[in-house]
Amino acid sequence: MTAEPIGPPVSGDQLDTLVAVLDLIRSGTARTRPGLVRVSGLGRAVVTQRVAQLIECGLVVDGALGPSTGGRAPRELRFRADAGHVLVAELGATSIGVGVADVSGRLLAQHEEPGDIALGPEPVLSRVEELFDRMLAQRPDGAPPVWGVGIGVPGPVEFATGRPVSPPIMPGWDGYAVRGRLAARYGVPTWVDNDVNLMALGELRSGLAVGESDVVYVKVGSGIGAGLIMAGRLHRGAQGAAGDIGHVEAVDDPTIVCRCGNTGCLEAVAGGVALARQAAAAAADGSSAFLVERARNGRKLGAEDVAEAAQHGDAVAVEMLTRAGTRIGRALATVVNLYNPSLIVIGGGVANVGDMFLAAIRNATLSRSLPLATRDLRMSRSPVGDEAGLRGAAFVVIDELFSRQLLPRWISAGSPAGHPTLPDVAA
Amino acid sequence: MTAEPIGPPVSGDQLDTLVAVLDLIRSGTARTRPGLVRVSGLGRAVVTQRVAQLIECGLVVDGALGPSTGGRAPRELRFRADAGHVLVAELGATSIGVGVADVSGRLLAQHEEPGDIALGPEPVLSRVEELFDRMLAQRPDGAPPVWGVGIGVPGPVEFATGRPVSPPIMPGWDGYAVRGRLAARYGVPTWVDNDVNLMALGELRSGLAVGESDVVYVKVGSGIGAGLIMAGRLHRGAQGAAGDIGHVEAVDDPTIVCRCGNTGCLEAVAGGVALARQAAAAAADGSSAFLVERARNGRKLGAEDVAEAAQHGDAVAVEMLTRAGTRIGRALATVVNLYNPSLIVIGGGVANVGDMFLAAIRNATLSRSLPLATRDLRMSRSPVGDEAGLRGAAFVVIDELFSRQLLPRWISAGSPAGHPTLPDVAA
Repeated sequence: MTAEPIGPPVSGDQLDTLVAVLDLIRSGTARTRPGLVRVSGLGRAVVTQRVAQLIECGLVVDGALGPSTGGRAPRELRFRADAGHVLVAELGATSIGVGVADVSGRLLAQHEEPGDIALGPEPVLSRVEELFDRMLAQRPDGAPPVWGVGIGVPGPVEFATGRPVSPPIMPGWDGYAVRGRLAARYGVPTWVDNDVNLMALGELRSGLAVGESDVVYVKVGSGIGAGLIMAGRLHRGAQGAAGDIGHVEAVDDPTIVCRCGNTGCLEAVAGGVALARQAAAAAADGSSAFLVERARNGRKLGAEDVAEAAQHGDAVAVEMLTRAGTRIGRALATVVNLYNPSLIVIGGGVANVGDMFLAAIRNATLSRSLPLATRDLRMSRSPVGDEAGLRGAAFVVIDELFSRQLLPRWISAGSPAGHPTLPDVAA
Repeated sequence: MTAEPIGPPVSGDQLDTLVAVLDLIRSGTARTRPGLVRVSGLGRAVVTQRVAQLIECGLVVDGALGPSTGGRAPRELRFRADAGHVLVAELGATSIGVGVADVSGRLLAQHEEPGDIALGPEPVLSRVEELFDRMLAQRPDGAPPVWGVGIGVPGPVEFATGRPVSPPIMPGWDGYAVRGRLAARYGVPTWVDNDVNLMALGELRSGLAVGESDVVYVKVGSGIGAGLIMAGRLHRGAQGAAGDIGHVEAVDDPTIVCRCGNTGCLEAVAGGVALARQAAAAAADGSSAFLVERARNGRKLGAEDVAEAAQHGDAVAVEMLTRAGTRIGRALATVVNLYNPSLIVIGGGVANVGDMFLAAIRNATLSRSLPLATRDLRMSRSPVGDEAGLRGAAFVVIDELFSRQLLPRWISAGSPAGHPTLPDVAA
């Protein structure tokens, strides 16, 4: 973790063009100096100078000779994705995932294990740190410095301060300085965000949503949440609380009490916990023979049992999935009418229970939406075992490190840790 | 409408700083060259050069000597708001509003008259053009050139092409080339947008929402619509259809058919038309003595009659307003949970029926929203007779004219009309 200056100071006037040139090289949009001139509209002299600055600070290297277009073949520029590493973590309700990524967002190593978020920040973050330390120790000699930490948690986060705020399923975490703790331990900038926001970002940068402007990512797991991409950027809202689709009113029924304290919430009638509860009821009252059989010996039922029952033609299970899917679809129709996205990605464990569930979501979404808003709307399921969350945790760090605000500061200072005014050091 | 070049060509590398310097002067954030250096972080030489370019093309003038801070007093720079004019129009369901604004967005003249959008584009736009022509003729000698046209319509608009798309209350307008017609007639760039989007933009640039990042503007009139400001910019969505809160499902009742063809839509139970229908029913069945009296001699009832009845303590009217307000508030709670705005502005004719209605909206919004998302949430009513729509129509033009995409092109070409690749000339 060097603190040597790795580049010359950057003047204010060069900022935008420096960031723009780096972005074009990072994304692979332009691979040579002439290509940069063509794509960016910048002058040749400016491109040459910015590339030189990026090479000097080690973020870009001159590679092999590229294809000639008549004259001298231009050299191919390569972003040094291995110039730094990023530590990433994704905390679920019942899982801890960690990884190491390079600064192109590629996961180099990852590990997942059971965990219980409800134990509180001290034991959970201690375990995350143990796993991070082990991953760091396992890296080969000469591994690059760590430039940042990104972590997702299953609840609302005030993004500016990196603290969870009143998270319903995270007792003990309210206001906890997650950013401050990890930033102090690893001496690098740290960003904390809601898990579904990071999944949305992961799909945007290297998944199903690459190149899209307006995307809604919906996670249907134990609970239900959404991440919104607006105009190509994650929309976090005024307090970082945006995307909370799980607690919109799905049914006007005061007897259905949600864990948030309100009644009739979407996740209280259509999430994994809700399906498990409905399955237990159908086993108890004997209305589903399949589920009665499944619940023998006191076995605890889950959404996957409902899915299997439905696949075996169990009418009660089919009805449960269709009703849950329809309710999610109606909520998504509201999202479509309000935001007019071009793509909806459906992820999370429960989203993978089968095509019947997805068909119900899709039908209800389309039947309740404005025709103009669904004219070109695509709805896709995210791949099973998708790493979007960990990738998103890497990209939240990378996007900030290479942003107009931070890039020039830490290039001048020598490393992301070197500059005292980085936001998380201040927070 | 000069087509003389008004400035030197601008190189790609100077673009961002030119736009940034102009923005700072336009907004009044910086008023002198030293002030610009301080606020922008740009070097003195760059600021001097950009200011010179802006003076040369007539957008900025050197004004009086400003206050000295020790040395020589710096000259105050002034944005020439009168360098160009903008024609603006706002079409309502039953009204036509037109105006002339300067390029600071200030309305210099305006006129409103009854109109019927359902007559179709030919008679309505002919009337708009007559009114525009009259306003142009009434300007004093030596008035500046017209640089653009902005127009709002009461329905969904595909912003990229400037055409209404399947607008429910605008028969004959579907796909009509509003932009093409006005751009051809006045020879200047033209932008067309949804009326509520323009109201949101008007409040953002010179109204209740100045300086806010995440704002929802809700118009409660005959129908109900919303405009979304995200990260300080109007969010139009993939097709420009965003903000359609009027047709989200408010009640699960297949007997309430909306004019959009769907059932249970918010505007079918809580908009002005819905309140008028409920008032007529209460007069017909005699449940409200006040409304029976009002409906004598076949008088057609409206939302304002319900409001007056409620002010006189009529229980049926109080119940109508409370129920409508509660339904709007529940829909807004969904918006708050999804989008986490810092401010909700409530406008439109029906929003002004009284405090009881607004209190019902506010209560329902707060009771159904995530606590974090309402921690600092403000809800305000837009002033009666607010000109936000016309101002927004001016700002949609101004924002585009002074943007990174257009400013340098038309500075080089001599006028906004002078450049052949302007988007609406191409569309």
